[in-house]
Amino acid sequence: MNNRREDAIVARLRAALRRGRAVAGIGDDCAAVESPRGKLLLLKTDCVVEKRHFRADASATAVGWKAACRAVSDIAACGGEPQHALITCVLRDKQAGRWLDGLYRGIEKAGREFGFHVVGGELARTDGPAVVNVAMTGTVARREFIPRGGGRVGDLLFVTGTLGGSLRSGWHLRFRPRLAEARWLAETIRPSAMMDLSDGLAADLPRLAAASGTGFVIEPEAIPRRRGASLRAALADGEDFELLFAVSAAKAARLQRAWRRRFPALRLTCIGTLAKRGVARGFGAVHGYDHFSDS
Amino acid sequence: MNNRREDAIVARLRAALRRGRAVAGIGDDCAAVESPRGKLLLLKTDCVVEKRHFRADASATAVGWKAACRAVSDIAACGGEPQHALITCVLRDKQAGRWLDGLYRGIEKAGREFGFHVVGGELARTDGPAVVNVAMTGTVARREFIPRGGGRVGDLLFVTGTLGGSLRSGWHLRFRPRLAEARWLAETIRPSAMMDLSDGLAADLPRLAAASGTGFVIEPEAIPRRRGASLRAALADGEDFELLFAVSAAKAARLQRAWRRRFPALRLTCIGTLAKRGVARGFGAVHGYDHFSDS
Repeated sequence: MNNRREDAIVARLRAALRRGRAVAGIGDDCAAVESPRGKLLLLKTDCVVEKRHFRADASATAVGWKAACRAVSDIAACGGEPQHALITCVLRDKQAGRWLDGLYRGIEKAGREFGFHVVGGELARTDGPAVVNVAMTGTVARREFIPRGGGRVGDLLFVTGTLGGSLRSGWHLRFRPRLAEARWLAETIRPSAMMDLSDGLAADLPRLAAASGTGFVIEPEAIPRRRGASLRAALADGEDFELLFAVSAAKAARLQRAWRRRFPALRLTCIGTLAKRGVARGFGAVHGYDHFSDS
Repeated sequence: MNNRREDAIVARLRAALRRGRAVAGIGDDCAAVESPRGKLLLLKTDCVVEKRHFRADASATAVGWKAACRAVSDIAACGGEPQHALITCVLRDKQAGRWLDGLYRGIEKAGREFGFHVVGGELARTDGPAVVNVAMTGTVARREFIPRGGGRVGDLLFVTGTLGGSLRSGWHLRFRPRLAEARWLAETIRPSAMMDLSDGLAADLPRLAAASGTGFVIEPEAIPRRRGASLRAALADGEDFELLFAVSAAKAARLQRAWRRRFPALRLTCIGTLAKRGVARGFGAVHGYDHFSDS
């Protein structure tokens, strides 16, 4: 599904959503619905498709890890903690034995690591590419929920880790969702907006800005790249599963000091600011570069 | 996926489940997890696959209705009410426009009818058969939750409606999940065990009995068949989406009187009883018949 088409459908569905009772939903990383005792119930569904998200020869355990961690990453991006998972496997006959076992080992490893329990699932058969869908619930205190659309003009934009080259480096199969980091941010810093980077910064940042009713200005040179990754790769490869978030300028110094103490091994980079609606600066040169290199 | 293999995987997963905090889970119609205020949160994931669960030329709206109503049927079978749904669509390029619109129309129609809200979803691309997965939450008061495994020896077995021929008659695309009936049963009769019939009585009844630690004796002649459906079809076609439930003999007369007043248009049939573990009577002749007719 290309991003343009997906965004269009998201916009159409948002209208339907207003009739529901969700606090956040389509267009956010998770849906969030009211729950007793000042909590929100987070709901996420996410799938990986053979030949799109993993190769047919990928380790089944790695595929299970990836399928589960993608959903964990979305729960984390809202400030929440994962709780329960339901797995749907649509597999070819020959995948229903040892391959399925390996898949579940990967999912259960992620469950131990990130604190969720597999409570149900379903199996169906296909003669086409395998599909593994993970439906996950999570929980977050209402006051710690971080929406995608809470950014304000002047907020500074940060990303964790490095971007680009996730496929070539194998990162897309073995990444660790930034759950501890996101929980810490939700509890201590309260970013105004946050999301995880799954489609690449060049697709995802405009979504955060649009949801916030703002524009953005970024410094292409500041974007932290994985070793060997070009700027284009850092912007467009996707499947980084790093956090992108906005914080007020007043909080930024405290954030950077506290981050270095708390997460000394993980890079945190300020890449720009949220600007007035309609401003989209920093990708321009990159788009030009892309166009040039493709033509 | 054949039933034998699915049952084996279900058994394997049940061990993992014990480590979780679910009240019910793999092997039940839904997972049920603790929720505040005497409630259980019900979680279900269910998918339909092109060429398996619907033909490529089926109306997209009917496919959406079916995909949503399958999950509603499972929530209902636990005594619960559906609340929120997340939709994952894995589609070929040419299905991502009008077909997807039609699919959502069918899902939203089911939402209006059965009281759930679509709060999120995801789109992915495939070059194989389309897959539509529905992840649904529901709620039920703890004391109204009906497990699959609560049946006792001597309980009477009932089914709603008629069985068999769901494909030929088109029932599988336009069935109405028995939500009102199941809620009424949960509130007033409290069946000891209940499930919805999705794989056919001959596959599903042994599951209810096994979960309850009992056997069963049924009267093949008593099984209510759809017009034109053979006994074999009523037992094995599947996708009936009727309720199968067990009630103590003491409640049975009251059930039948009250049912006729409350649901005069829907047949309710006593088809047998739960018996001692190891007893499986009534399908024997049918299996023999099947074997004979196939050889």
